[in-house]
Amino acid sequence: MANPTAAMLVIGDEILSGRTRDANTHHLAGELARVGIDLRETRIISDDETAIIAAVQALSATYQHLFTSGGIGPTHDDITADAVAFAMGVSIDIRDDARAVLQDYYDRSGQELNAARLRMARIPEGASLIDNPVSAAPGFTIGNVHVMAGVPRIFEAMVASVLPSLTGGSPLMTQSLDVHRGEGDVAEQLAELAAQFPDLSFGSYPYQRDGAHGTNIVVRGADGVLVDKAMTQLARIFG
Amino acid sequence: MANPTAAMLVIGDEILSGRTRDANTHHLAGELARVGIDLRETRIISDDETAIIAAVQALSATYQHLFTSGGIGPTHDDITADAVAFAMGVSIDIRDDARAVLQDYYDRSGQELNAARLRMARIPEGASLIDNPVSAAPGFTIGNVHVMAGVPRIFEAMVASVLPSLTGGSPLMTQSLDVHRGEGDVAEQLAELAAQFPDLSFGSYPYQRDGAHGTNIVVRGADGVLVDKAMTQLARIFG
Repeated sequence: MANPTAAMLVIGDEILSGRTRDANTHHLAGELARVGIDLRETRIISDDETAIIAAVQALSATYQHLFTSGGIGPTHDDITADAVAFAMGVSIDIRDDARAVLQDYYDRSGQELNAARLRMARIPEGASLIDNPVSAAPGFTIGNVHVMAGVPRIFEAMVASVLPSLTGGSPLMTQSLDVHRGEGDVAEQLAELAAQFPDLSFGSYPYQRDGAHGTNIVVRGADGVLVDKAMTQLARIFG
Repeated sequence: MANPTAAMLVIGDEILSGRTRDANTHHLAGELARVGIDLRETRIISDDETAIIAAVQALSATYQHLFTSGGIGPTHDDITADAVAFAMGVSIDIRDDARAVLQDYYDRSGQELNAARLRMARIPEGASLIDNPVSAAPGFTIGNVHVMAGVPRIFEAMVASVLPSLTGGSPLMTQSLDVHRGEGDVAEQLAELAAQFPDLSFGSYPYQRDGAHGTNIVVRGADGVLVDKAMTQLARIFG
């Protein structure tokens, strides 16, 4: 059976303005490969309500899972929860269970659960909460959309909270071979091999080290036996 | 006058599988901010012809510029040039000027310009070449789509080649203030300030250092005088 598909939506002006380098896509990509969910697309958009709604609707309709990062904090530009609720056609309000989690956290840390922080208890109707062991304010899953924080440490904790609840598939098996030849010199034989293994993906990544050209050939696929077979042939051709 | 808008399209299985961390978006974001072109969206997709065609058509129709990275090397999975030609409705073939650039480079480096490498001279009809001072094989601009290599060193060189030919706008001015208070404690006053400056963008990025909560407040906009004004008020409120 084919693996479930997924997309990632990164929400934040700070990425598109060049201030911040997105780290969450790379983390999620690795975690999804491990559990056998195929990440097919990532989009990065700004903190713009119309853009968020359009992207959530398009991606949640196309893929089996959509993971979002960013825009669920306490400030005026944290509009992801409301935009996702609108995109999914449900209402949103402060929810008692989310409020209780926040109240407990701020009580213990001696900070005030003020109006701004209470916004983080706004949860779309019918959503289930995603646990945040770092800073309490929860993410949530509504339909096939998993809404998580942008701060990498919190995002990673939320991914760890939500992934065990999802049905994965065959983990992506990856093997690679380093060939001391330029990419243009391996291309023809690599194409022939790729044609023999239509269920595998063959990537080639050129590099230059101490002035010499080399190519890192990567074979990826869900079937480990097939990947082994291709690697044996690769080694015979280029080894 | 409003700044020109742009999108970025990163093409490559290696990003979505978690093997490689995309570095090109962050580089382009910084360069575009400097010349006053507003990066509004980034998409990362796999080396899939249908996906590339759909993304190129959608993004080139929505934004004034589209920059792509990846998939223009010599191997079987380098299908970006052909997919972009299809998306833009033009033919593609080996072009003499691109072939001459490659022939000269491989002659000088004592390597063979074989059939695989010659694929890198495939240029859509009507495109102009983007200079590649690193490894010769050119990028190209067709319509409002700028097609560049995925290897970061080459991508960056191509960005440097193409940017001077584009009309920019007002560079994005950015200033920031570090406040030793939690994000939830600055949110209310920050929202009031943001409402006073609708032409500016106010971002807030929480952090924890030595156990203490802090927030980095970032003010962005095309009008430097306005940004200065907002920073003065910020400092009065939180300083």
